[in-house]
Amino acid sequence: MIIAVDAMGGDHAPPAIVQGAVQAVAESKDKLRIILTGKKQKIQKELKKYGWNKDLIKIHPASQVADSTVRPSQVVKKFPDSSLVQGIKLVKQGKADAFVSAGSTGAILSSALLLLGRIEGVRRPAIIVYLPVGAKGIVLCDVGANTEVKARHLLQFAIMASEYMNHMHGVRKPKVGLLNIGEEANKGREEYVEAHSLLSKVLPNFKGNVEARDLFKGNIDVVVCDGFVGNNLLKFAEGWIHHVHREVTSQLISDERNIDKSALNDIFTDIISEYEYEESGGSFLLGIKGICMICHGASPARAIKNAILSTAQSVKEKLVESIRVGISRTVAQIEII
Amino acid sequence: MIIAVDAMGGDHAPPAIVQGAVQAVAESKDKLRIILTGKKQKIQKELKKYGWNKDLIKIHPASQVADSTVRPSQVVKKFPDSSLVQGIKLVKQGKADAFVSAGSTGAILSSALLLLGRIEGVRRPAIIVYLPVGAKGIVLCDVGANTEVKARHLLQFAIMASEYMNHMHGVRKPKVGLLNIGEEANKGREEYVEAHSLLSKVLPNFKGNVEARDLFKGNIDVVVCDGFVGNNLLKFAEGWIHHVHREVTSQLISDERNIDKSALNDIFTDIISEYEYEESGGSFLLGIKGICMICHGASPARAIKNAILSTAQSVKEKLVESIRVGISRTVAQIEII
Repeated sequence: MIIAVDAMGGDHAPPAIVQGAVQAVAESKDKLRIILTGKKQKIQKELKKYGWNKDLIKIHPASQVADSTVRPSQVVKKFPDSSLVQGIKLVKQGKADAFVSAGSTGAILSSALLLLGRIEGVRRPAIIVYLPVGAKGIVLCDVGANTEVKARHLLQFAIMASEYMNHMHGVRKPKVGLLNIGEEANKGREEYVEAHSLLSKVLPNFKGNVEARDLFKGNIDVVVCDGFVGNNLLKFAEGWIHHVHREVTSQLISDERNIDKSALNDIFTDIISEYEYEESGGSFLLGIKGICMICHGASPARAIKNAILSTAQSVKEKLVESIRVGISRTVAQIEII
Repeated sequence: MIIAVDAMGGDHAPPAIVQGAVQAVAESKDKLRIILTGKKQKIQKELKKYGWNKDLIKIHPASQVADSTVRPSQVVKKFPDSSLVQGIKLVKQGKADAFVSAGSTGAILSSALLLLGRIEGVRRPAIIVYLPVGAKGIVLCDVGANTEVKARHLLQFAIMASEYMNHMHGVRKPKVGLLNIGEEANKGREEYVEAHSLLSKVLPNFKGNVEARDLFKGNIDVVVCDGFVGNNLLKFAEGWIHHVHREVTSQLISDERNIDKSALNDIFTDIISEYEYEESGGSFLLGIKGICMICHGASPARAIKNAILSTAQSVKEKLVESIRVGISRTVAQIEII
C-alpha cells in the first residue's frame, strides 16, 4: 500500500509531516509505503534526521506550495506543481492509494473534486469527523464541505458516514440521527424537516432528530448536519476543551489545599487528549473517487502519524468501493419511492 | 419592582420554582416582589414550607398548564388561563415589570410576541445566552428564536445583545463578532457574507468574523449567529460539560493512586458549575415590549433564583428602553446608507 503525503501543508510543515510519516511507517503492520510530495531538499534534510529507509519512503518533487489566500477553485490552475496538486495526481494516476494533507481544507476539497471527481451517484462530497464518545464513538457529517444543503444531501451524508462507521469502527448497522434543535419531526430549518421525512422512508436505522446535548449519550453512531453547523460545532468543541483545560490548570495552581494537584492534572489531561484532533488525526473527505484525509493545520507529528495510519486502514477496508455500493443502492431505492 | 413567575413551567415545577422565588426575594436588594402564576393550592402548599411572606410573594391563580405538545402559536388561544399566558398578561397590563418561566421556549416566544408585541423597529426577537468566559464573559445571540435569518436580522441581534452587555455586564462598547467558519469576509452562508458587509458599514465595534474555537479568547463580547447554529452550539456545550464531568468522576474512582479524590472532584465541580446554565439562570428574550426570561426546563431552585435576580437587574437597567433607542438609531442610519 502506498500513501501520498503532502509534506508542505500545515503550520508545522515540513518537519512535523516528515516525522509523522516516518513514525507511521514504523508503526504500520500493512507494509505501508509513503510518497512525500514537496520541495526535495527540505524533505531530504528532515528525513536524514531519522535514518531514512529509502525503500519505504520516497520523495515526489513539487516546486510549489499552494497559497492559502488563493481561491480554492484556482489552486489546480495556479499551483499545478504544488505538493497538494501533485499528491492528488499520484492517486489519480494509480501511483498512490490515498492522499493525506494538512493544507487548506478548501484547497484539498476543491482540487480533489476537480482531479479525482465524485463517486458515481454522489451529489456532494462531505467531510466527517470522528468523536471518541462512549464505547464506539460517533461520527459527525458534514463538518465543512457544504455550507448549504438539501435533504437529499443529508441522506447521502448518512449513507457515507454509516459506511465509515461500519468499516473503520466495526459498527455493523450504525444508528443514524439528524442533528436538530428538537426531537419533533417538524423542528428546524426547512431542509431538516424534509430530511427527517426522507431519511425515515429510506434508512432502516434512522432514529430521528437528535439534539446536540444528546450526542454524548451513546445511542447514536452517525449524526448528519450541514457543514456550516457541523464546522461550527467542531471548532466550538476544540476551543471549549482548551479553555476548560486552561481553567482547570490555573485553578489547581491557585488552590490552597494540600492535595496532589499533579494527579488531577494528569487525569484531566488524559481525558482531554482523547478529544483532541491529534488522536484521531484528521477528517476524511468522503464521496470522492479516492481517499483523501484532511489534517488540522496545526497538526504535530503525532496527529499526522495517526492520520496516515487511519488512511491506510480505510484503503484496506475499501471504503471508496463501499460508499459506491451504498450510494447506488439508495439511489435505486429513491427512484422506487 | 414586581416580577411575574410561571410557577407551573419546567420539569421541577412547582416546587423548584416556588423555592427559587422565595430565595430570590430573600437575596434581592431591590425591594423585589413576586407574583406566582398557576394552581393556587399547589403553590400555597409549597410556599408554606418556607414561612411565606404574603406582602412580597402573591399568587395569581391560573387553572391551566400549557401543554408542550400543542403548537406554540396556539398556546394563547388554547390555554388562555395557563400560568404562562396569565404571567405574560400581567406584564401587558402593567401589573408586573417582567416575566420568568421555565416552560417551553417556543410557547413563551410565541405568546410574548402575540401579547406584548415587538419593540418598534425590531424585525425579529431573539434569545441570548451569556457564557462566563474570561473576565467579562460573552453573549451569544440568537440561540433559538430564528432558525432562518437575513443579514439585517443579524445586525439587529448585534445591537440588542450589545445593549445587554452594556447594561447587564458593564461592557461599555461591546466588541461584536459574526460567528462563521472562517475569518475571511466571503466565508459561510450567503446571509453571513451579506451580514459581514452590512455590519462593517453600520457598527463601529464590529470586529469581523469569529470562528467558534476563538470564542474563548476574550477579545469579543458579543457573537451573533442564526438561532439554528446558536441553539446547536449551546446544547452541544451543555452535553459536553456533563460528559466531561462524568468522565472525570469515573476516572477518579478507578484511579489507583493514593490521592484525595473528593478534594479533586470538588475543584473540578466548581469549575464546571460555572458553565452550567444554573449559574446564569436563563436566557433573555430580547426585542419584545417587556422583559421575558426563559429558563432551562430542568432548572432547579438555584437556577430559578438566579434567573429572577438577573431579570430584576434588567428591569432596573431599563433594558427594553435601551434596545428601543439602539434599534431606532440604527434604523435611521441604514436609511441613510
